[in-house]
Amino acid sequence: MTAFDPGFSTAAMTRLFSAGARVSAMCNFEAALAGAQADAGLIPARAAAEIEDVCAAPVADAESLLAAGWVTGTPVAALLESLRADLSPEAGGAIHCGATTQDVVDSALMTQIRDGLDLLDAGIVKVAAALRFLAAEHRLTPMVGRTFLQHAEPTTFGLRAALWLEPLLRQLAGLRGRRASLPVQLGGPVGNRTALGEQAAVVTAGVAKRLGLVVPVVPWHTDRSHLLEVVTLVDRVAGSAGKIGADLVQLSQSEVGEIRTRSGKSSSMPGKRNPIDSIRAVAAAQACGAVARVVTAAPPHQLERGVGSWHAEWFAVPLVFQTAGAAVEAIGLAAGSIEVDEARMAANLGVAAEPAMLAAAGALVDRVLAATDAAGVK
Amino acid sequence: MTAFDPGFSTAAMTRLFSAGARVSAMCNFEAALAGAQADAGLIPARAAAEIEDVCAAPVADAESLLAAGWVTGTPVAALLESLRADLSPEAGGAIHCGATTQDVVDSALMTQIRDGLDLLDAGIVKVAAALRFLAAEHRLTPMVGRTFLQHAEPTTFGLRAALWLEPLLRQLAGLRGRRASLPVQLGGPVGNRTALGEQAAVVTAGVAKRLGLVVPVVPWHTDRSHLLEVVTLVDRVAGSAGKIGADLVQLSQSEVGEIRTRSGKSSSMPGKRNPIDSIRAVAAAQACGAVARVVTAAPPHQLERGVGSWHAEWFAVPLVFQTAGAAVEAIGLAAGSIEVDEARMAANLGVAAEPAMLAAAGALVDRVLAATDAAGVK
Amino acid sequence: MTAFDPGFSTAAMTRLFSAGARVSAMCNFEAALAGAQADAGLIPARAAAEIEDVCAAPVADAESLLAAGWVTGTPVAALLESLRADLSPEAGGAIHCGATTQDVVDSALMTQIRDGLDLLDAGIVKVAAALRFLAAEHRLTPMVGRTFLQHAEPTTFGLRAALWLEPLLRQLAGLRGRRASLPVQLGGPVGNRTALGEQAAVVTAGVAKRLGLVVPVVPWHTDRSHLLEVVTLVDRVAGSAGKIGADLVQLSQSEVGEIRTRSGKSSSMPGKRNPIDSIRAVAAAQACGAVARVVTAAPPHQLERGVGSWHAEWFAVPLVFQTAGAAVEAIGLAAGSIEVDEARMAANLGVAAEPAMLAAAGALVDRVLAATDAAGVK
Amino acid sequence: MTAFDPGFSTAAMTRLFSAGARVSAMCNFEAALAGAQADAGLIPARAAAEIEDVCAAPVADAESLLAAGWVTGTPVAALLESLRADLSPEAGGAIHCGATTQDVVDSALMTQIRDGLDLLDAGIVKVAAALRFLAAEHRLTPMVGRTFLQHAEPTTFGLRAALWLEPLLRQLAGLRGRRASLPVQLGGPVGNRTALGEQAAVVTAGVAKRLGLVVPVVPWHTDRSHLLEVVTLVDRVAGSAGKIGADLVQLSQSEVGEIRTRSGKSSSMPGKRNPIDSIRAVAAAQACGAVARVVTAAPPHQLERGVGSWHAEWFAVPLVFQTAGAAVEAIGLAAGSIEVDEARMAANLGVAAEPAMLAAAGALVDRVLAATDAAGVK
Repeated sequence: MTAFDPGFSTAAMTRLFSAGARVSAMCNFEAALAGAQADAGLIPARAAAEIEDVCAAPVADAESLLAAGWVTGTPVAALLESLRADLSPEAGGAIHCGATTQDVVDSALMTQIRDGLDLLDAGIVKVAAALRFLAAEHRLTPMVGRTFLQHAEPTTFGLRAALWLEPLLRQLAGLRGRRASLPVQLGGPVGNRTALGEQAAVVTAGVAKRLGLVVPVVPWHTDRSHLLEVVTLVDRVAGSAGKIGADLVQLSQSEVGEIRTRSGKSSSMPGKRNPIDSIRAVAAAQACGAVARVVTAAPPHQLERGVGSWHAEWFAVPLVFQTAGAAVEAIGLAAGSIEVDEARMAANLGVAAEPAMLAAAGALVDRVLAATDAAGVK
Repeated sequence: MTAFDPGFSTAAMTRLFSAGARVSAMCNFEAALAGAQADAGLIPARAAAEIEDVCAAPVADAESLLAAGWVTGTPVAALLESLRADLSPEAGGAIHCGATTQDVVDSALMTQIRDGLDLLDAGIVKVAAALRFLAAEHRLTPMVGRTFLQHAEPTTFGLRAALWLEPLLRQLAGLRGRRASLPVQLGGPVGNRTALGEQAAVVTAGVAKRLGLVVPVVPWHTDRSHLLEVVTLVDRVAGSAGKIGADLVQLSQSEVGEIRTRSGKSSSMPGKRNPIDSIRAVAAAQACGAVARVVTAAPPHQLERGVGSWHAEWFAVPLVFQTAGAAVEAIGLAAGSIEVDEARMAANLGVAAEPAMLAAAGALVDRVLAATDAAGVK
Repeated sequence: MTAFDPGFSTAAMTRLFSAGARVSAMCNFEAALAGAQADAGLIPARAAAEIEDVCAAPVADAESLLAAGWVTGTPVAALLESLRADLSPEAGGAIHCGATTQDVVDSALMTQIRDGLDLLDAGIVKVAAALRFLAAEHRLTPMVGRTFLQHAEPTTFGLRAALWLEPLLRQLAGLRGRRASLPVQLGGPVGNRTALGEQAAVVTAGVAKRLGLVVPVVPWHTDRSHLLEVVTLVDRVAGSAGKIGADLVQLSQSEVGEIRTRSGKSSSMPGKRNPIDSIRAVAAAQACGAVARVVTAAPPHQLERGVGSWHAEWFAVPLVFQTAGAAVEAIGLAAGSIEVDEARMAANLGVAAEPAMLAAAGALVDRVLAATDAAGVK
Repeated sequence: MTAFDPGFSTAAMTRLFSAGARVSAMCNFEAALAGAQADAGLIPARAAAEIEDVCAAPVADAESLLAAGWVTGTPVAALLESLRADLSPEAGGAIHCGATTQDVVDSALMTQIRDGLDLLDAGIVKVAAALRFLAAEHRLTPMVGRTFLQHAEPTTFGLRAALWLEPLLRQLAGLRGRRASLPVQLGGPVGNRTALGEQAAVVTAGVAKRLGLVVPVVPWHTDRSHLLEVVTLVDRVAGSAGKIGADLVQLSQSEVGEIRTRSGKSSSMPGKRNPIDSIRAVAAAQACGAVARVVTAAPPHQLERGVGSWHAEWFAVPLVFQTAGAAVEAIGLAAGSIEVDEARMAANLGVAAEPAMLAAAGALVDRVLAATDAAGVK
């Protein structure tokens, strides 16, 4: 049961940000911490092994556990209580040593983000491949360029597609770079790693390695810029999908009719073709932009822990990824179904395109195709 | 399964904005339309009765039905297909006559909003009652007033509580006024009610009456100001909850210690008291403010139907109510559990409060208490 | 010298929110306070008269005075220093008694807002009159209705104009109601009016009357909902202008060509007609929506005085009015210059409009015309 | 005359984004274009020299010229008319060849952004130097860490300062990287560089070099991600300033009193110390965040030119830089004036700090000091 229209997520993103997946990511952190501490000789290897086993089992009622966190004060207190019920006293005493709730929550979120970036990456590649095909296929297909929706000068549909594609390629590169540098959080109660003692650096490195994250210069408990950068990037991807969607709606409007996409039907007018995927991309991008700002425009996180600004991330980050995932999925469906009406383009243009214009547009298309090849998109 | 932390909704709001409840609200519209059309003699009474029966039964898989809308183009097309499977040909032909998807979706949303406002009303009354008690009880309890968090001059805790309460009373009045004037949507495919013929006004009034909504001057398919006003008002309620929460966190901080609320515990420091309900109110208010802007800052809805801006409401409005509900619930728990430390207040103030100050503060408290009585809050 | 493009304000709004006008509004508050206190017997009439005289004279370098406030801590401290240089010791001791900076700044802002609402009112009336003319003139002029920019069913251009007009009428009513209930701020250092003694209510009423404001139930130093309601309303007006502008751009696009407005020219293509006023309305509405949120989405104002959230209003409120003024001015220019191409409308529609449709549309137009008459718009 | 409170800009930023400076930046583009075209043999060298001369002279009334753009349709049409009045027919025919308004406006904006980034860079370095001093000086000065404003565990003030500093260093690096890659805009009327013919690449490179910008893969007329990235980065800098300011307000509040900064005075309470610079940083950061969203949350720019979304940048980008400049200036003043009360810190902490804690905090401080040295901040 979701509490908003299902068009604003995808099946995979909903799963990734479900209560179960979130609690599981928290368990993975506790297991990684125990493993790293055992390696450093801080807790017995036996205890670590036990913790890893218990943390690998799915938690029974993740939703209730998270809800309980709002009574006890933190989702981790509730989780630890549940885990310790299955642990020996020794392992129960060894779990979560030197860590604080924020370490668990932030690191778990980063691992979910990593998986979310992978889902987006696959979706973007699909969109990019569709646009690449159109850019190459229609490299020299003339159409009229429109500024302020007024006819301006001739251009080609291939260049239009290439101009949709190029920012996506830069965003894909940004997303991959970011994926490779997601920081672990490990600072203890006030972010100074005191409780990890002299082994702080070693343990932090061990946890990061186990979780596939990197070690930041310092804990980032109230510096949210790492998170903000990811969220901004994801919002930008959604924005690109929205731009493509908005343009597709314009180009497929009744009076223009230069392209057609997979179309939905009306509840009252059987013959009407509504560009439903493009509309969904536009809507999801708007939603993404709004929830992104919960993070990007958050009031400052106070001193050593944000009062509310931190917690609001638990609402916003999952929704940023779900809405962005929806926007990318939708624009992939739209882009993959574009039918180009070259005759209509020619008729709307009204004049013959000059060879010089075609050459100029084609040259720009080639630059984007080269960049696409360089990004490994086929 | 929700796709974000459960602290950002309440059980009742989650239910109200579930897929099932939404589809059910859509069915109620179709039933009301059929009933009104039968009354106007536009469709047979028998068909209307059949439609009302079928629409009263719960839809099997509401979530899938809504998801299917993103393929077929509208959630209503999918719903009608499902309903018609259970209707006679006559009733199947009579359902949805003269209406369009937007009529169903917008009117259904308005009825959900009505119920959401009732939930908020009950929550606000609870908060207001708790604050009223504090205002009266501590009418003359001296404490220091703080501007820019610096000690300024003496005031009373009763006045602080009264100043939290007063805007809530105005918002409660606004919310009740708004609840009484939520408009039905009924315009047909392009908002001119053509398909309803000469009976347009009669049918519209009939549908409105059946749904507990009012008849607007004109259809509002691309004038979203009715919706925007509700959303703004609800966001304002959440904002008031957030302000109270933020102040409670300040007043309960270690160095100030003038109040205590129901407290959560830390995962690492057993003795620590975290003002978890206040924090939740702050966080939920931030979330509400962001999603509200999907509606209040939406790009204009184009001509006779919004491209994406309309659909984004299906994401945002449910979340606005859920987050606002969470903020109100949380601040109710906080306000209802406030313990006042008068000795600490006196110690922080450091000087004796002058009778004139107490009288001035008390006079303002009395104005708010009178307003509270006028609002019927006990 | 403005620090942003002049298209985002109007001459009158820029003047109204200039440093000089702001300081002058602050002086008016000090004069009103002195007058009211003299009436209540709290300060000598002679001192009040002197204060009123000095406050009526323009301040030499208002910009520097406001800038100095960021060194001394408040713009009022700098202002008082400047005023006292021209006052006798008696009057110098009597000015600002029992008030605090926030009383001056907030009340002054409310008087600027009152004048800003008057400017908007005049602008809206102009737009409404233009739309009323179009609604009446084209009550039965057929055109195609477009949903998702796809041809849907026939409607009339008069109804399109009426649907632009109707929300403006409601907003005009809201704006007038709001103008009549703008609250004075008078609470003293911590908002309990202690320093005004037993005469607090009398003095507050006197200041309010002199400034043309009303007396609120309680001071609103950290309850910004009064301000938020005005800002929201003004943003909504800008939004309506933006919606009209966006639709005019769509209807005047090359392929549609159903209307023409006063047009700018291109720097590179002499024959091109850019709908510059509509574009300006869209842009100014976007700008307004963003700055409005400085107020509507402000973090809570702490305890007895906002830390930053209050000061940010000094940036945002002037810009909200300037951008809204620009949007209204621009859409007035656009709406007043609309040329309707009925032949093109008929051609795009392609079919003959049925009499029943025309009658239905006309009936709705009539409802809006009646509402327009009721609002006194000619 | 600014139209908002002067605390939300700095003298240098106001100058940089004045009408005169903007028109001057546009002239620089026309000069660079003429120079590059002469080098490519597209226009006579004599004409280019004449254009360069005329473009170097200040424009008489820049404000009126920009305002005129909202009548004629584009600021560039008005500018060209003014320039051509001073040019020979030959040069008048050679200026602006192959370019369109957006080329001029966007490229000019990028050069203003470059200078704005330099101003921010200098401001950040000043803040960073002050924080570096504090981090080193108080590397081992114990204080209590506060989470949710509740006492948690001991930390050091040097680490608090280092944690404020570290994100600024990353932002400084980001800002320098971005400064080195600001793209020129040169695409002609529809962004395909047709009018520049076979020399398009050469001319684009020439213009970029003259303006100190880089050549993008393709024109970015409706892909605003380049701009969005700069704006986001600048907003992030303002956000860091706001976080520091908010923390300084907390630490200097009456009950905590661990630090003092340069303080303003109250208009009503002589002894009160208001942390005015920190407050200004918080307020300016809030303002920056809001105006940044005009760009980052803009509705998609349509096809080959944004309708309003583009123009709104002319409002927002100058304000983003002005407010960010204000935030950085303010926090520089605050950070440079911090007096640390070690005795109060010790008293608030209440317990002796353990050597292991000091060592852990010191080790993290050292990591930040090393990063600071690497960034060349002294």
